[in-house]
Amino acid sequence: MLHAANIAQQIPRAELACITDVDAAAAQACADALGGIRAGTDPGEMLKDPRIDAVVICSSTDTHAPLIIEAAEAGKHIFCEKPIDFDLAKIDRALAAVERAGVKLQIGFNRRFDANAIRIKSAIDRGEIGAPHRVHIISRDPAPPPAEYIKRSGGLFLDMMIHDFDMVRFLMGCEATEIYTMAGVMVDPAIGELGDVDTAVVMLRFQNGAIGTIENSRKTVYGYDQRMEVFGSEGSVEGENLYPNAVIRRGETISRDQPHYFFLERYEASYRNELQAFVEAVVNDDPVPVTGIDGRMPVVMGLAARRSYDEGRPVAL
Amino acid sequence: MLHAANIAQQIPRAELACITDVDAAAAQACADALGGIRAGTDPGEMLKDPRIDAVVICSSTDTHAPLIIEAAEAGKHIFCEKPIDFDLAKIDRALAAVERAGVKLQIGFNRRFDANAIRIKSAIDRGEIGAPHRVHIISRDPAPPPAEYIKRSGGLFLDMMIHDFDMVRFLMGCEATEIYTMAGVMVDPAIGELGDVDTAVVMLRFQNGAIGTIENSRKTVYGYDQRMEVFGSEGSVEGENLYPNAVIRRGETISRDQPHYFFLERYEASYRNELQAFVEAVVNDDPVPVTGIDGRMPVVMGLAARRSYDEGRPVAL
Amino acid sequence: MLHAANIAQQIPRAELACITDVDAAAAQACADALGGIRAGTDPGEMLKDPRIDAVVICSSTDTHAPLIIEAAEAGKHIFCEKPIDFDLAKIDRALAAVERAGVKLQIGFNRRFDANAIRIKSAIDRGEIGAPHRVHIISRDPAPPPAEYIKRSGGLFLDMMIHDFDMVRFLMGCEATEIYTMAGVMVDPAIGELGDVDTAVVMLRFQNGAIGTIENSRKTVYGYDQRMEVFGSEGSVEGENLYPNAVIRRGETISRDQPHYFFLERYEASYRNELQAFVEAVVNDDPVPVTGIDGRMPVVMGLAARRSYDEGRPVAL
Amino acid sequence: MLHAANIAQQIPRAELACITDVDAAAAQACADALGGIRAGTDPGEMLKDPRIDAVVICSSTDTHAPLIIEAAEAGKHIFCEKPIDFDLAKIDRALAAVERAGVKLQIGFNRRFDANAIRIKSAIDRGEIGAPHRVHIISRDPAPPPAEYIKRSGGLFLDMMIHDFDMVRFLMGCEATEIYTMAGVMVDPAIGELGDVDTAVVMLRFQNGAIGTIENSRKTVYGYDQRMEVFGSEGSVEGENLYPNAVIRRGETISRDQPHYFFLERYEASYRNELQAFVEAVVNDDPVPVTGIDGRMPVVMGLAARRSYDEGRPVAL
Repeated sequence: MLHAANIAQQIPRAELACITDVDAAAAQACADALGGIRAGTDPGEMLKDPRIDAVVICSSTDTHAPLIIEAAEAGKHIFCEKPIDFDLAKIDRALAAVERAGVKLQIGFNRRFDANAIRIKSAIDRGEIGAPHRVHIISRDPAPPPAEYIKRSGGLFLDMMIHDFDMVRFLMGCEATEIYTMAGVMVDPAIGELGDVDTAVVMLRFQNGAIGTIENSRKTVYGYDQRMEVFGSEGSVEGENLYPNAVIRRGETISRDQPHYFFLERYEASYRNELQAFVEAVVNDDPVPVTGIDGRMPVVMGLAARRSYDEGRPVAL
Repeated sequence: MLHAANIAQQIPRAELACITDVDAAAAQACADALGGIRAGTDPGEMLKDPRIDAVVICSSTDTHAPLIIEAAEAGKHIFCEKPIDFDLAKIDRALAAVERAGVKLQIGFNRRFDANAIRIKSAIDRGEIGAPHRVHIISRDPAPPPAEYIKRSGGLFLDMMIHDFDMVRFLMGCEATEIYTMAGVMVDPAIGELGDVDTAVVMLRFQNGAIGTIENSRKTVYGYDQRMEVFGSEGSVEGENLYPNAVIRRGETISRDQPHYFFLERYEASYRNELQAFVEAVVNDDPVPVTGIDGRMPVVMGLAARRSYDEGRPVAL
Repeated sequence: MLHAANIAQQIPRAELACITDVDAAAAQACADALGGIRAGTDPGEMLKDPRIDAVVICSSTDTHAPLIIEAAEAGKHIFCEKPIDFDLAKIDRALAAVERAGVKLQIGFNRRFDANAIRIKSAIDRGEIGAPHRVHIISRDPAPPPAEYIKRSGGLFLDMMIHDFDMVRFLMGCEATEIYTMAGVMVDPAIGELGDVDTAVVMLRFQNGAIGTIENSRKTVYGYDQRMEVFGSEGSVEGENLYPNAVIRRGETISRDQPHYFFLERYEASYRNELQAFVEAVVNDDPVPVTGIDGRMPVVMGLAARRSYDEGRPVAL
Repeated sequence: MLHAANIAQQIPRAELACITDVDAAAAQACADALGGIRAGTDPGEMLKDPRIDAVVICSSTDTHAPLIIEAAEAGKHIFCEKPIDFDLAKIDRALAAVERAGVKLQIGFNRRFDANAIRIKSAIDRGEIGAPHRVHIISRDPAPPPAEYIKRSGGLFLDMMIHDFDMVRFLMGCEATEIYTMAGVMVDPAIGELGDVDTAVVMLRFQNGAIGTIENSRKTVYGYDQRMEVFGSEGSVEGENLYPNAVIRRGETISRDQPHYFFLERYEASYRNELQAFVEAVVNDDPVPVTGIDGRMPVVMGLAARRSYDEGRPVAL
């Protein structure tokens, strides 16, 4: 719905053609809300429509790879939500189909399009901090998802930390070569019963020599905590949280309201910007800013992080 | 254009019917950009259309009062940009026409719909700071407008400080009774040659006993400076500037980028919110949140501020 | 006691010779605490001691002028707490005695020696903010003094705002030419019954064209509020409050502890630094950094501020 | 010299009796500066003086253990700078001597006495953040020490990170059970030639389940970077850097001056406070706040961190 509304209302060079959902009523509701768009349940039918140039895949993760293949074979450009799949072989088949078809594929790592990430990346690229020595990301959710979601999520490393794996690759501009994980169940024992963890810290070594750390928690009492710092030979840049207002209160303490509660508020602009960038790439026939390889590597990293946790040792990438 | 785009794209319960502008090409360009809206140069013709419920007046200030009267007599609800007029008699005639017609009139004091203002107002209303003793507003533009604009603007007190006069009334919830002004030409002598000032500070006494100060400057080297503090018996609330990102850089200094450059970026959401509120008031037949009297009083204050400056003495309101 | 301990322990080039106090026990207690210093109740006797080079006068305000005269006539250099007196004629007689004797006189405007004030002054002097257009000082005490103190204090303008009058002169580097006051009793009616106010705002015009505002309150619920901003053609510098720690807590709100509670904690270093500077001036025969005129002008300003309040009009200085 | 001046001038219940240094001139200079204290080169002679209750050992690290033993056998209470030694057997012999003699031994982990550390520890102890899940410490020096110093320093883990090992133990209130290190030479190849690293990150598991990370760098371009955060089930507390002033400048950027340059400025108060606490413990016969075990465990951790780095695997503690 978010993506559909962005395309329909916020991106002048794109036109929303139709909506499909396995739930026909959901598809119809979305189509109605956006002003008489065509709705359906069969993506295959939609892919036959020659007036359609591109598709946005935001269905459940297990459908991503087959839909990418189907769309690529239909010659459509593709925007697909992360992760492509939890299985590298399936990812590789999907990427091969995209390659064969010569269509564009952009993966939905929206945080690259956040103002903080853009500013930090540009600081690195312009030499404002010299050679990067360290990257540290804090990513904490306000509350864990329901058990049903966790079961199908691929676990913390592939569902939640995957965004941070993408971010460290994006910021460092190179690959990680080694990963070590400490993790545990500190928030909710039910998450542990599902075989997952709810708190994790990983340490990474990058090809440029820099050392990375990422920490995730499924729960804070104070909203969505999304911070990062890159430290280098000439300085440091740190992205702080964003807030719904900038009002300071002086009373028993000196305080401000909590940061944005969760990702829809916090990353609102980035969802619009990533689709805008995809549409520009399609319209101008430019390379997409987040490629299939960018979709694959964070899955490799997430699988390795989990293996390091399971085996209690550093894992080479 | 901003208001038109907001109505067309951001406010689901409103539909943009047509655009008029004395410049036919401008009207057409705006209408085209928003997807085939009707365009014209004659508001009178548009006002005859029975399918139109409400109008948004954002033409030059001298046309506000006559257009309000014309729209009220046509039975349309009215949103009008500030100021209604520089002449209180003209304002009173316009408000009388609105009263007679029984239509709604909302004045475009958009800053009341800014997240900082909303939070500060709610802090006061909920007793978070006790009885207000002080209100202080800093409002500094990044650069002065062109001389042509200044000539027709009514001067700093009616063009720029009028927003702050509205804000102190909104926050204090009562009227000012006395005003004293110090001002000068510090930014650009050309502004002085036009009989205007570019830097001003006013002090106000309110009916609730609180003392207010407002300071304006037409120029900073660091973007748009929009801060305010209300101090009371139980604490203080202070609205800080808003920034395009939340990235801190540690290098020669500990720094962040400048705040938003000017009002379009800084108050973007408030422009959407004020029209949203107007549309809700019209659709639900509720009172508008910024009334004709709210439009009149800041003009009274602006005229008194100027008189205080001219006569070098405090002026009763 | 504070000054005595600073001289005895913190300023290597000074030696504390003796302590006098009208209360013999208090003098003795202070002398004992500082390790066997001579104590007495008669300053005249002490002034005969040829080994004593300088005196620090921190008795009640009504004794300042006579003690200055007595010390000057004894050829001692003088550090005297603010204010010299509430009566300009008495101040002038004291300054004349100092002039005749050729001794040094430094007035205890300690805030000039605070790190924030030093940094802001140096920013102005180095051109970091260009030509000053505005200076704004917020000075709020955590709690009003006892009625007994207020009776003898000279009132808010001569007791409390006098520090801010000194600060604006220090920062602007020129005199104020006009002052306008709004004030009231908002904190405690008992203060009003003594003929004093507890909340005041003054507006000042300076010789350099800049406009100043100072606001004082006798009471906050959040400790000592000591902030100031100077805005100019090339930027702005703002001194924020100082805090006992730099710990941020993220919970129901994002908060930190209140700032330093009152002047002893907040301005601790400045009390040491002002005496250090006095001792250096004496030892090196350099000019003192805060002169007799610097002690006189804030009294002139305080008297004018009160007159403006009493007469409801701006007062020329 | 710092400790001597603190005892001589800042701690009323202690008296500085004498100074010894292998460099007689240095001892004399220090003694003269503090006002006629006895100076010498032989600690053994001093230890015979029955009027001396306690000693402060701040000689080079290799002398710590023998001096502790000598002082303990002379029945003196001991304050000793960190680290006790790089060799655990020597540490154990020194601690055994202290135990036998029944004297007090406090180790100089001054940062526990810093206002940020005290506030964070009290937040944890009072339940403000619930159960700790994470602790993260950033500790970066402004510039690497000379090669001569590095040679004798024990390396980054025993010289620099040792403070952070103490801090995580202090904050968590339990021991670490596992450690994993990534490190490198990023600042200066000369440090690598000495077999040391200049940049390191360690990950720790604690007995309470929490996961810790510590990062060190020998060089920033922006002064001394000393931050830490503890995150728990009910919130987070974060200690920010301390600054020489609290002045914000608005110009090309919104900036403030760099934080305190190095440990003498940053931790000034903590050096005074730790000795104050030692003196109180001696005078009141209370337990010292930082014990011999507190001195031993960070050495264990530093040795394990180095082993983890050398062997590329997590090391159990």
